[in-house]
Amino acid sequence: MGMIGGGIDAFIGAVHRKAASMDGEIELVCGAFSSSPAKSQASGEALGIPPDRVYGSYTEMIQKEKKLPAGKRMDFVSIVTPNHVHFDPAKQALESGFHVVLDKPMTLTLEEAIDLSRVVKKTKGILALTHTYTGYPMIKEARNLVASGSLGAIRKVYAEYTQGWLSTPLERTGQKQAGWRTDPKRSGAGGATGDIGTHAANLAEYVTGLRITSLCAQLNKVVKGRKLDDDASMLLAFDKQATGVLVATQVAAGEENNLTLRVYGERGGLEWHQEEPNTLVVKWLDRPREYHRTGTGYLSTAAKSVTRTPSGHPEGYLEAFANIYANFAKAVRANKPGKNPGKEFDFPTVEEGIRGMAFIEAAVLSSREKQKWIPIPKS
Amino acid sequence: MGMIGGGIDAFIGAVHRKAASMDGEIELVCGAFSSSPAKSQASGEALGIPPDRVYGSYTEMIQKEKKLPAGKRMDFVSIVTPNHVHFDPAKQALESGFHVVLDKPMTLTLEEAIDLSRVVKKTKGILALTHTYTGYPMIKEARNLVASGSLGAIRKVYAEYTQGWLSTPLERTGQKQAGWRTDPKRSGAGGATGDIGTHAANLAEYVTGLRITSLCAQLNKVVKGRKLDDDASMLLAFDKQATGVLVATQVAAGEENNLTLRVYGERGGLEWHQEEPNTLVVKWLDRPREYHRTGTGYLSTAAKSVTRTPSGHPEGYLEAFANIYANFAKAVRANKPGKNPGKEFDFPTVEEGIRGMAFIEAAVLSSREKQKWIPIPKS
Amino acid sequence: MGMIGGGIDAFIGAVHRKAASMDGEIELVCGAFSSSPAKSQASGEALGIPPDRVYGSYTEMIQKEKKLPAGKRMDFVSIVTPNHVHFDPAKQALESGFHVVLDKPMTLTLEEAIDLSRVVKKTKGILALTHTYTGYPMIKEARNLVASGSLGAIRKVYAEYTQGWLSTPLERTGQKQAGWRTDPKRSGAGGATGDIGTHAANLAEYVTGLRITSLCAQLNKVVKGRKLDDDASMLLAFDKQATGVLVATQVAAGEENNLTLRVYGERGGLEWHQEEPNTLVVKWLDRPREYHRTGTGYLSTAAKSVTRTPSGHPEGYLEAFANIYANFAKAVRANKPGKNPGKEFDFPTVEEGIRGMAFIEAAVLSSREKQKWIPIPKS
Amino acid sequence: MGMIGGGIDAFIGAVHRKAASMDGEIELVCGAFSSSPAKSQASGEALGIPPDRVYGSYTEMIQKEKKLPAGKRMDFVSIVTPNHVHFDPAKQALESGFHVVLDKPMTLTLEEAIDLSRVVKKTKGILALTHTYTGYPMIKEARNLVASGSLGAIRKVYAEYTQGWLSTPLERTGQKQAGWRTDPKRSGAGGATGDIGTHAANLAEYVTGLRITSLCAQLNKVVKGRKLDDDASMLLAFDKQATGVLVATQVAAGEENNLTLRVYGERGGLEWHQEEPNTLVVKWLDRPREYHRTGTGYLSTAAKSVTRTPSGHPEGYLEAFANIYANFAKAVRANKPGKNPGKEFDFPTVEEGIRGMAFIEAAVLSSREKQKWIPIPKS
Repeated sequence: MGMIGGGIDAFIGAVHRKAASMDGEIELVCGAFSSSPAKSQASGEALGIPPDRVYGSYTEMIQKEKKLPAGKRMDFVSIVTPNHVHFDPAKQALESGFHVVLDKPMTLTLEEAIDLSRVVKKTKGILALTHTYTGYPMIKEARNLVASGSLGAIRKVYAEYTQGWLSTPLERTGQKQAGWRTDPKRSGAGGATGDIGTHAANLAEYVTGLRITSLCAQLNKVVKGRKLDDDASMLLAFDKQATGVLVATQVAAGEENNLTLRVYGERGGLEWHQEEPNTLVVKWLDRPREYHRTGTGYLSTAAKSVTRTPSGHPEGYLEAFANIYANFAKAVRANKPGKNPGKEFDFPTVEEGIRGMAFIEAAVLSSREKQKWIPIPKS
Repeated sequence: MGMIGGGIDAFIGAVHRKAASMDGEIELVCGAFSSSPAKSQASGEALGIPPDRVYGSYTEMIQKEKKLPAGKRMDFVSIVTPNHVHFDPAKQALESGFHVVLDKPMTLTLEEAIDLSRVVKKTKGILALTHTYTGYPMIKEARNLVASGSLGAIRKVYAEYTQGWLSTPLERTGQKQAGWRTDPKRSGAGGATGDIGTHAANLAEYVTGLRITSLCAQLNKVVKGRKLDDDASMLLAFDKQATGVLVATQVAAGEENNLTLRVYGERGGLEWHQEEPNTLVVKWLDRPREYHRTGTGYLSTAAKSVTRTPSGHPEGYLEAFANIYANFAKAVRANKPGKNPGKEFDFPTVEEGIRGMAFIEAAVLSSREKQKWIPIPKS
Repeated sequence: MGMIGGGIDAFIGAVHRKAASMDGEIELVCGAFSSSPAKSQASGEALGIPPDRVYGSYTEMIQKEKKLPAGKRMDFVSIVTPNHVHFDPAKQALESGFHVVLDKPMTLTLEEAIDLSRVVKKTKGILALTHTYTGYPMIKEARNLVASGSLGAIRKVYAEYTQGWLSTPLERTGQKQAGWRTDPKRSGAGGATGDIGTHAANLAEYVTGLRITSLCAQLNKVVKGRKLDDDASMLLAFDKQATGVLVATQVAAGEENNLTLRVYGERGGLEWHQEEPNTLVVKWLDRPREYHRTGTGYLSTAAKSVTRTPSGHPEGYLEAFANIYANFAKAVRANKPGKNPGKEFDFPTVEEGIRGMAFIEAAVLSSREKQKWIPIPKS
Repeated sequence: MGMIGGGIDAFIGAVHRKAASMDGEIELVCGAFSSSPAKSQASGEALGIPPDRVYGSYTEMIQKEKKLPAGKRMDFVSIVTPNHVHFDPAKQALESGFHVVLDKPMTLTLEEAIDLSRVVKKTKGILALTHTYTGYPMIKEARNLVASGSLGAIRKVYAEYTQGWLSTPLERTGQKQAGWRTDPKRSGAGGATGDIGTHAANLAEYVTGLRITSLCAQLNKVVKGRKLDDDASMLLAFDKQATGVLVATQVAAGEENNLTLRVYGERGGLEWHQEEPNTLVVKWLDRPREYHRTGTGYLSTAAKSVTRTPSGHPEGYLEAFANIYANFAKAVRANKPGKNPGKEFDFPTVEEGIRGMAFIEAAVLSSREKQKWIPIPKS
């Protein structure tokens, strides 16, 4: 693995590294950790990367690694930069024969997303999008439960992602995370919608197997002076007559990282909270509700296969993240042209990336328009 | 107290009786328990009411009680019939000098609600509307916390009321509760919106002190063949720039009576679940979240004054309901013309009733229209 | 009902009155509310009792009520005084033909308890002991689950009752509740052991159907200067080879009224918390844990028959208390000599009272002795 | 790091490897993964260890690694075998100049534990004992809270560790974990007491800073035919007049890995559940209870310094385990003679190992004796 971005002072780079290396199957061998060559070298040194594998730019890394012998060069790049530096390095890497792990939202615009999907198709590269929350065992269980039909046809989907960390104008204090996330040039058209709304939408679609077909959104810039939404609410229409609500806000003071999904079918429902991720509540119309727990013997194979510890030994965010990498790594090892690796190996791909960008653009448009419902094209 | 409706086979009548009598201050002295005189007598007998105080119709009860001497006749009527039998008995009672306790939604239409408010004003009667959930101690605490300003200006309000009991066409089995609630002639224009959506909207306004100014609603008839919505979702705009979401559904299979309110201000938020009503979660931007509990010494006077047991001895739905009656009874005893008893004695009145009916009508209209936002008039 | 004790400034008297009257079947008709005749009259007046039915002493009340005609005199007395005023009024009442509701622990000593049981037997009176917590619907459900055998033979029983209100020497501030509870002359040999330990022990035996056969206790006087234990822990042996632990403390600072019961059998277990009493957690060896909830359709008849509101409308402490009175009232109405009304009508009687006193005496003895295990005689 | 035991079919070996490598600072370089050389080689190959660094026995590994040049040889061994193979490899490693990470309980007997402590002292080696649960951020927070004095003097300590996995005679099915844990030759004198009771005792002492001075235990062999206890309950006396209760059972059917600690002082208490480890409940005598959460800004430095993700991104068991390794690694890097690395770098050492073995022996003795209290010597 080679890393683009993720210098030692960045949060998400370290998370990617821990997640990638968790199962001892992926090794960080090179990196272009910063757009400043000096900073990149300093990060590489701290990470124990040989100086000749630390690069001053991603273009340099991709070009030089490409020339290394097969057993030595990196197998894929992990791109952990702000959104405006997603498309170009991903495209370069794919076109040079490298697979790609990419943070979400996939690109700066829907147009870039569609372009990138063409690159993936053409190069037959494998691209994983880190919609981390789909990596949790109990989300696999939830998806499996819906697919099994035991809840009946799905009628309602409530997806919420509430945080409080942008309740104040944090970006004006120089905080880096807040800085780029509230800047349309680096984040794209969506603020909270792009940063966390896409996670909620993706999770809803992943678990239910349904697709959002149209939405009616209210996006707000609650903290004065913000250029991007820090708060979003929307009504959703899904295919197969399901409907729902999606909330994504970063100004819910006192909330941490409260991603919650609730789904109701004809005969029962389910509820999952990311902050206590090892429990899936399953509710039934006419019998006691059940608490399904990570690591237990009664779970589906889907849930069991992404679990590392016995029941009662809680798994967390890093393990969920590691599951994205692990499934991606399996696809890379099994690499055969013509497959749809995301479906086969169960990780989010460029397809989910396009849906995320379409979701952002529809939400932003809806919030501006008087028209009630804005469709999201099928991708 | 005289009761209109609430025969022995009705659910809500018994709840009203237990609630009214809880503190030993209100006594049931007469009733017109059914539109069938025979059933009314049977109910009266079961309840230990002397036969001469059991009436065959509410008109008869009001007329005859009026003629009894002051110390003997009922002081007020409690109307616990389906919505289409709210307006007329309430009007007759008020015009005959009796105060009124009325179940929600207040009337069949907004027009009736406005008419009834005129009757209240003219007769100087006292009318209490049983928005039960405002009677909980921790809701008083929540309202007090918001009013104190410690959360800062309110930004977001999420009110949800999810039930599952109408997930199947229960009304076709002859179940009485389901029967009238799904019948527009007896319920009015709103199904779930009227039955439970009004509770959620009222609770949101009560706790925050804000008013919903417009809404954008999606109402669904999820179970095939229903004539009224059994599911509603809506985006809300409040005054003072707050926004929010309201969900009211009766097809969330596996939910019981899950009324949940979450409110976020600049510096913190609060969360309350009716099913565990003795805890109010208070969240802060930069310090640990707190669990405020019914019956403790640190609560506000507002919360303490409606509590009957020490902390850790849970209070429930009947006690909350009793608080509406207790505050109404205080107003009746203190009866002085020209006051606004609801504000002074803290119980919902005709004013909340009008807002509820306006809410229903706006939601129904919004769901039909392509226009995004429908205003709710200030009452 | 006539009340002994429970003047208007007493806590538990009001609880008894609300509980007794909840279902409209029991009416307070007379009282000896205080040992001071003036205070008794003042309380009677506040409660709307005619002055001629308010008495200056319980002896006076029992004697005078006895002479009233059958339809007019009280049917039973409710004794809500401190423990040292339990035995004598109960005995007098029973011997005068009145049934008795009595607060726990039943008497000051085991000897008194045994004497009282003889009086009950001789007079054929009905005595209910207010072990309130057995009145909760989910405790009925728990008992039913154990009895059904679905958990297998019971192996472990953990009963805990933790409170924090005596963490400081509150009794020195003049607080009445703390005053008599920490005074051996008024409370008897047990402090926390008697006040709340007996509840925990009773609940454990009620739910499991097992009997504590011996115990090994550590009783502490944590707050300096106390004459009675304010903290107790003990190992328990039950019949049928079950074992367990019982904790009863009033110095767990920050706890409210945390009575918790956990029971484990060969195939599963259950967990119940009094502070959230409408949920019974049922755990299984090899399938998901279940949350059984008050008011739902899938519960046992035992649980359903003591429920007043639909699921999701929480019931609380007063309703549990009312269930003791309601079952006692049924027994009184059905009064036939030679029955064991506690078993038939499901409420705690003099038998549970004796067990409670034996438990206290064994615990106090155990704490003093070097010998490890102290037996509790079968009653 | 060189590993002793932990072949590819063993559970805890993989946990150690993931934990050790989580922060990219520790690398597995060699191993004697099994007592069967062939199995050891197979495991080594699967783990990507060069064949010449995979050894057929721990003695061979220690001897051969010792001869490798300083930069190449392993720095320490991680011993993840059953208890009867703890003492000898640890002693050999220390005497050959290697530091040691050792699973708990430390040895087979107290005598071995004391011997091992002498070896540590003599060799100036560093030994870490993996009492994993002390690695959780909220346990650091709890310890810090007690030490700060804000709860006042500690009065009560309740430590519980309930599991259900040994509810049936699993060891007779050939399950390896159950096999050695129920075998006195491989486990030592304690069953549940040694396997999980030591964790609970260690956690109680770690958080409170108190020492258990004596205990009164009841140990049971609930499943017929077992030679070691599968269930334990005990009363505890601590120094500074605190008392408590410890429960450790593996036959609580339906429990997973429920380690719970509750501590009460004069002014407040705290509660922590391992299964939801990112929340520490802090209870106060006279103000609302607080929920302290991993990753938040208001925590102590002690808690913050062992956290890898922002608040709301749950950390789990592997991360807690990694914290033991990380602190051990810091001590190894800072290695200076004459220090007490466990205290300085905050990880469990041979001292905790001795206490654990003394705890087991006292519990086993207590359970056999009629004498009520058995002292635990100060180590």
